[in-house]
Amino acid sequence: MRAGRPRDERVRQAILAAAQELVLEKGYAEVTTADVAKRAGAGKQTIYRWWPGKGALVLDAFAEWVRQAPRSNLRKPSLSSTLVEFCRGASEAAPVLRALMAEAQFDEDLHKRLITQLVRPRGDELRACLTDRRPADREVLVNVLSGLVWQRLMLNEPLDARFVRYALRVVARF
Amino acid sequence: MRAGRPRDERVRQAILAAAQELVLEKGYAEVTTADVAKRAGAGKQTIYRWWPGKGALVLDAFAEWVRQAPRSNLRKPSLSSTLVEFCRGASEAAPVLRALMAEAQFDEDLHKRLITQLVRPRGDELRACLTDRRPADREVLVNVLSGLVWQRLMLNEPLDARFVRYALRVVARF
Repeated sequence: MRAGRPRDERVRQAILAAAQELVLEKGYAEVTTADVAKRAGAGKQTIYRWWPGKGALVLDAFAEWVRQAPRSNLRKPSLSSTLVEFCRGASEAAPVLRALMAEAQFDEDLHKRLITQLVRPRGDELRACLTDRRPADREVLVNVLSGLVWQRLMLNEPLDARFVRYALRVVARF
Repeated sequence: MRAGRPRDERVRQAILAAAQELVLEKGYAEVTTADVAKRAGAGKQTIYRWWPGKGALVLDAFAEWVRQAPRSNLRKPSLSSTLVEFCRGASEAAPVLRALMAEAQFDEDLHKRLITQLVRPRGDELRACLTDRRPADREVLVNVLSGLVWQRLMLNEPLDARFVRYALRVVARF
């Protein structure tokens, strides 16, 4: 997937940036890989060399956006700062996340990518903030928190500061 | 939505039954309203008189299937029997539920119907099993349980007896 040569890497970054911009401008459903190729000044066949389709491309573009987002530079971030960052990112990208999860229901490859690139890494970050809990409780809390967030996303309910306070109260009750 | 005259009601039931059968046979994505009309011996325009599209029709067919499912006839069902029934129904209908939730991400009318016909009634049934809890805890538990179930559905993980035991342990920890 990741291109090796510097020129390839520049083209790859241009494609991811174009995908990010277009999804923000037009919404996931309206964007085609042809649009992305045109905006990036690349050929459609270049996109299909690296990604099987729009879903996988947009998922990588989203992962890149998350990677570039400002992070608290605490060595061990707190659960509350991690949840605030998650929810800010998930709110801003809510239409994309909802569209990717929806498309993944009909596309097994995208489903696997979504779990590997998004669901598991976010779970790992939550887990890292719960090292003071017993392992079994930690797994339950990761599961409960991620269930609350995905449910909110799919039901299109706000992932705002109020939700973060609510989620922290749920954790405190355990 | 509900047709008044007996003949209308018979046609409506035939359409819902045809939609149920076809979705089971072919999967949600492959079924068209034209297929359903043909199987039910009705006109396509009859379907569009009562339903705005495939999503709303299949949602009603699913609601009818839930209504007809055998229920425990306890006056006040336990949380555990309610969860067992939920998870059995959700497992059998998992592909349909995943498809409906997915399509609802791109269709605001279907999204509202899904919340009104599916998410809220299931929440109410869970709530009714939690009357021994303080109201605030009850709401949290309804939210947590429904988050766990939807997350499992969308991640295509089993809603089996093991999950029910897990969910009951989560509730017991509160």
